[in-house]
Amino acid sequence: MAERRSGPWTYASSGVDVDARARALSALLGGVSYRPPPTHGRPLAAPGHFAGLVRIGRETIAVTTDTVGTKTLLAEALDRWEEVGEDIVGVNVNDLAAVGARPAALVDTVLCARPEEEVFRALGRGIERGLREARCSLLGGETAIVPDLVRGTDLGATAIGFFPRGRRPVTGARIRPGDRILGIPSNGVHANGFTLLRKLLDARSVDLARPRPGSRIPVGEELLRPTRIYTVAADALADRPEAHGFAHISGGGVRNLSRLSDRVAFVLDAWPAIPPLFGWIQELGAVSTTEMFQTFNMGIGFALVVAPDHLSETRRRLARAGAGDAGEIGHVERGRGVSVPAFGLAYEGYA
Amino acid sequence: MAERRSGPWTYASSGVDVDARARALSALLGGVSYRPPPTHGRPLAAPGHFAGLVRIGRETIAVTTDTVGTKTLLAEALDRWEEVGEDIVGVNVNDLAAVGARPAALVDTVLCARPEEEVFRALGRGIERGLREARCSLLGGETAIVPDLVRGTDLGATAIGFFPRGRRPVTGARIRPGDRILGIPSNGVHANGFTLLRKLLDARSVDLARPRPGSRIPVGEELLRPTRIYTVAADALADRPEAHGFAHISGGGVRNLSRLSDRVAFVLDAWPAIPPLFGWIQELGAVSTTEMFQTFNMGIGFALVVAPDHLSETRRRLARAGAGDAGEIGHVERGRGVSVPAFGLAYEGYA
Repeated sequence: MAERRSGPWTYASSGVDVDARARALSALLGGVSYRPPPTHGRPLAAPGHFAGLVRIGRETIAVTTDTVGTKTLLAEALDRWEEVGEDIVGVNVNDLAAVGARPAALVDTVLCARPEEEVFRALGRGIERGLREARCSLLGGETAIVPDLVRGTDLGATAIGFFPRGRRPVTGARIRPGDRILGIPSNGVHANGFTLLRKLLDARSVDLARPRPGSRIPVGEELLRPTRIYTVAADALADRPEAHGFAHISGGGVRNLSRLSDRVAFVLDAWPAIPPLFGWIQELGAVSTTEMFQTFNMGIGFALVVAPDHLSETRRRLARAGAGDAGEIGHVERGRGVSVPAFGLAYEGYA
Repeated sequence: MAERRSGPWTYASSGVDVDARARALSALLGGVSYRPPPTHGRPLAAPGHFAGLVRIGRETIAVTTDTVGTKTLLAEALDRWEEVGEDIVGVNVNDLAAVGARPAALVDTVLCARPEEEVFRALGRGIERGLREARCSLLGGETAIVPDLVRGTDLGATAIGFFPRGRRPVTGARIRPGDRILGIPSNGVHANGFTLLRKLLDARSVDLARPRPGSRIPVGEELLRPTRIYTVAADALADRPEAHGFAHISGGGVRNLSRLSDRVAFVLDAWPAIPPLFGWIQELGAVSTTEMFQTFNMGIGFALVVAPDHLSETRRRLARAGAGDAGEIGHVERGRGVSVPAFGLAYEGYA
């Protein structure tokens, strides 16, 4: 039954209590203080990043772990699984890309109530597409049939990355006022904001099989589009000294940029035209623009902060790496936080 | 409501259809064939192991991923979370130990419907205990609040291990007839067989707050005991040439040994007295001994196949590494499969 609601929707009103989640997480982390002797691997600090770094012998290894979230419920409603299969790879390797790590291996986790062969076959096709795009191996996985534990299907993975031939992690530490910010377009909503999105679709009784106004493909299909994979683009720049910081615009939207540095202001004064899909979502729930930019990618899935003196060379490198559609979206100034002046938006920090 | 059932219980009758799971998994893997160029990490074959191996630069990295499974439903029923927190670490680092890898880092995944602070605090304490025991860092994690996706709480992790100073992975390839098999005791049922176990407890209306006959602690508590961590014991032997193969006796029970080599027979002719907890479980559901030994660890959580000529030295090394309770449980012969002669059991292979 469709939930009824008047007034604007927010991510919190859709049932995701971000503060309660943060309190729970800090309760967990508060109890974890153990540091092993250096002969057992040395964790390195990568503040602000979703990837963790650990020094093992002569290599630095980056590790990310993430799930596709409730996007799988849309996949289930449409009985289309290839896209979310590809997302398993994308959501993880993009977090590796954000520290300049090259993916080496992925392990997946599928939790479901029933092992349906056709679903798994489609997931495999999607994972394969993602791996090819990210140039990454599938090293293993876990398939748990747990009908008492899950209602639908949960898809997650862990990706392992490395820094070839002495490359240094790209942390954001070198970001300074005057740097330029490039953005690479997204391929739709990727795998973020689905808890809010599904509530909106439900409340407005949207027919997923029909296109939204102005589109030709069914809206369900449009929303399922897999996460664009930024691995090759980031890998093409990660060895360059002018690459100061990378951000995967995932959950948290443009606020993710502020995780890179709290000593500068990220001014997004050249944000491109927002794809109509996001405008349609916004109208569906009378969602504020503030909320939209901190929940969805709004058309830009990956941001690169680069020194101003190599801009055209950087764009050529990106074009050769499949990101010829990258464009300047802003610059770095003295100050703090993230702003999008065209929409009057100013965010203090990440959360 | 308790399910009613007459006749003996098996893992399959508890709702886990192992064949359907295998078909689904091979449908998924059938679509995944991509191998990246060698500049993007080289996967190494480790047939028969739950850990995957990948060569990254100058290091070999081992990766395992596993969940605690439906043991979390027992934790929820008893509102005790520290033990399953420790299990998150144990189920993963023991699979690393089985290839002789030393853990370097763990990332956890918590999926739940509500972020309850006290639950997360207890999980953190348990994870910390596991990390100390395994000498491993927590490098990151993912906490997803997904009430539409999970009924209870799912706890999983990925562990990353390495091979210090040129150590070679322990694969089982050197196992030969005449080798001896040592076993290190378990700490109860660990985190396997819970789908069957919970059905039995439910069908027989077992009061979890009361001890089973012959025990003094509540049976719920006894079943929750965390997975024993074999990291330090395996690490103490993994550099030794006489260490031919290690097996974590988890899901699949003693059949896991046959994954190490299909060219020899593993004869477990010195299995120690089975802890009374397992006898009680067996009687509860008229479970056959065949089923018990391929579902539960039956008292031995880790097995080590070693050359016969260094046996007392091996036992001294294990004792110094906290496994003074290791004992000989069998030997290797010409042939195939795994047998436990005292119970007339013979298994062809793994599945």
